[in-house]
Amino acid sequence: MGTNVGQQSFTIIENGTIVTPSGFTAGGLHCGLKKTSRNDIGAIRCEVPATAAAVYTTNVFQAAPLKVTRESLSNGRLQAVIVNSGNANACTGQQGEEDAYAMRSAAARELGVAEEDVAVASTGVIGELLKMDAVHSGITALPAQLGNEANEAEQFSQAILTTDLVKKEACVSVVVNGKTVTIAGAAKGSGMIHPNMATMLAFMTSDAVIGAEALQRLLRQATNHTFNMITVDGDTSTNDMLVAMSSGYAGNEELTMDHPDWDAFAAGFTYVCEVLAKAIARDGEGATKLVEVQVTGAVSDESAQAIAKTVIGSSLVKSAMFGADANWGRIIAAVGRAGQPVNPDTVDIRLGDISVLEQSRPVVFDEEAALAYLQTDDTVRIIVDLNHGEGTAIAWGCDLTYDYVRINAAYRT
Amino acid sequence: MGTNVGQQSFTIIENGTIVTPSGFTAGGLHCGLKKTSRNDIGAIRCEVPATAAAVYTTNVFQAAPLKVTRESLSNGRLQAVIVNSGNANACTGQQGEEDAYAMRSAAARELGVAEEDVAVASTGVIGELLKMDAVHSGITALPAQLGNEANEAEQFSQAILTTDLVKKEACVSVVVNGKTVTIAGAAKGSGMIHPNMATMLAFMTSDAVIGAEALQRLLRQATNHTFNMITVDGDTSTNDMLVAMSSGYAGNEELTMDHPDWDAFAAGFTYVCEVLAKAIARDGEGATKLVEVQVTGAVSDESAQAIAKTVIGSSLVKSAMFGADANWGRIIAAVGRAGQPVNPDTVDIRLGDISVLEQSRPVVFDEEAALAYLQTDDTVRIIVDLNHGEGTAIAWGCDLTYDYVRINAAYRT
Repeated sequence: MGTNVGQQSFTIIENGTIVTPSGFTAGGLHCGLKKTSRNDIGAIRCEVPATAAAVYTTNVFQAAPLKVTRESLSNGRLQAVIVNSGNANACTGQQGEEDAYAMRSAAARELGVAEEDVAVASTGVIGELLKMDAVHSGITALPAQLGNEANEAEQFSQAILTTDLVKKEACVSVVVNGKTVTIAGAAKGSGMIHPNMATMLAFMTSDAVIGAEALQRLLRQATNHTFNMITVDGDTSTNDMLVAMSSGYAGNEELTMDHPDWDAFAAGFTYVCEVLAKAIARDGEGATKLVEVQVTGAVSDESAQAIAKTVIGSSLVKSAMFGADANWGRIIAAVGRAGQPVNPDTVDIRLGDISVLEQSRPVVFDEEAALAYLQTDDTVRIIVDLNHGEGTAIAWGCDLTYDYVRINAAYRT
Repeated sequence: MGTNVGQQSFTIIENGTIVTPSGFTAGGLHCGLKKTSRNDIGAIRCEVPATAAAVYTTNVFQAAPLKVTRESLSNGRLQAVIVNSGNANACTGQQGEEDAYAMRSAAARELGVAEEDVAVASTGVIGELLKMDAVHSGITALPAQLGNEANEAEQFSQAILTTDLVKKEACVSVVVNGKTVTIAGAAKGSGMIHPNMATMLAFMTSDAVIGAEALQRLLRQATNHTFNMITVDGDTSTNDMLVAMSSGYAGNEELTMDHPDWDAFAAGFTYVCEVLAKAIARDGEGATKLVEVQVTGAVSDESAQAIAKTVIGSSLVKSAMFGADANWGRIIAAVGRAGQPVNPDTVDIRLGDISVLEQSRPVVFDEEAALAYLQTDDTVRIIVDLNHGEGTAIAWGCDLTYDYVRINAAYRT
């Protein structure tokens, strides 16, 4: 069932889902918010009030459900999440807020939990009011599914998708003072993806015993190195949210940063975030490949992050990756405009194993080999060594393709 | 010949070029740097050493010709500009620098001016050495053209283009204490265009009597409101340069900021910059239309500029404009992530005359009319009023199209 990866302190559970950690059920179905018959409403329920944490979009215009979720989370606890796709319930004013509260109270009633223990999330078109008839019929039908269907997690994962092509899930287990703790996550997001929580929803479950403060801190740290290091198109959504719930069913001694197994737990938790983040980047609207940018030798990790994000966000670099063009000139131009300390004479650039620039000077390289490397439908690695310090970072994104334009020229109409 | 525009203090000269101001000749021809037979080397020459000023890219990696031009301009004077397209002479190390100096000395010799009065500019592919044989043969052939052909300015304007579809020129005249002063400009740039002097070259000529310091200050001011307010794809080139030369042949009293006609001159100068900047944005790689973003009601002009640039730079907004989709949700999402003070409850958005958002709430609008407005091949105006202060700004860009991807997926290979 599990795969132990090298020296890693956690075990990957290949087909694990958000209901693999003990204590969770989930479900999803079509209630009529999407024009197609795809699932558009879903829920996760914990048997007990779970320790919970969340991070939210940095956009000034935050959608109504975020306000409601913040309020629910003020006690560090959640027992259920209700989420819809097809409509973001953003820029919908007073009515939108009332609708988000109505979603919360209907979910609380139907799932048998307290209102203040329910998080609400929405994703989809901005500026249209939710069809509340559809939402209410969906919420009423959900409880029959939770815990009763073999593919309940699959139904949930489908319910949160918009222009995504594939569902995104990950699961690992970690041993904490002899007890097996399981951590899982499900996410959506393929357009409007950018650092700082772009149109992305992610839900993580765990059965670890952990305090809300420790969970919140870990969530923020892991987010900074994973979800906040991906970009599809540089836009930041009004609706992004990452919610983590931990049931405590694993029965371990409470995890704190001083616990001897904290690092193992944090590594497993961060790994789940990284798998989901990379899956979102790979499934970027119109993408044909995952692009990974590794920056080393920067003056600090923060500086390396800024440079990696600038390179991964460059439309010219992204177009070149689509065209399998080893156009390192665009990579170095992006490095140079990141606003970070760079020595213009000491930069090395590799595409995978192929060195194209050394000490800021072009290297004669095998164009055929570079073309073959870039023509992958898997992962292209751009490696930039500034030779200017000890800072490192990795960012993920995708290529810019005809399909990105097609999808976004006709999303709403 | 001229058109006087409303209350403007200057007169537009419809077919004016960089040789319309007295004292200038120009030329351009094909020397072999481009694979096609299009012009790839050009020069402007002034009969006398001209007062000169320049602004350069902010990219850390500045191309060799910029270093040479900076050195030439240290005395505030230029008599000639030599420029090539097809090769940027960037990231070419010591050899690239020697080549840029060689271009300068060859141009000085052939054009009969002092070396330290020659500016050098290059645009094109990064990281390849210039074919100096071609460059030298081009420079040798240029003098026969300068001042001897009716279309000499046209030949120059063609010589600086890369992926541009059309040449960009503008010309105005202004009366300064009774003397007619003429100001003209020619520019190139269609990809890697972003605030802070992206792959853009612009050359301005004037016959005004003006000091180098005043010209430099005006050039910087005008650039901030024109060239630095356009974006095609968010990338900033290694080679951008805007050079202005003024022959003094108009014989006016020296223009200083205290001169009673300074404002008229500045308005004419800025207008030429704006026409060129908008032409660059309109000719953005693959663009089908010009997009203008007007921001009012910001806390300051700087804040309005930041917001306007974020909106015009959003791939999602740009894709929607291509698709003629009145997707104001993407506009407000871009406003909200610009990192500027915004009241989330007071934003108005119009597309041309069509109001789509008032006080941050959707307005029911005529979708047919909006579609018709956005389907133009001319200019689409996005008007954002934050109702939060007195700051205003205008930015220009273009839509994101299949052709942008096509052009940039296969530029180098």
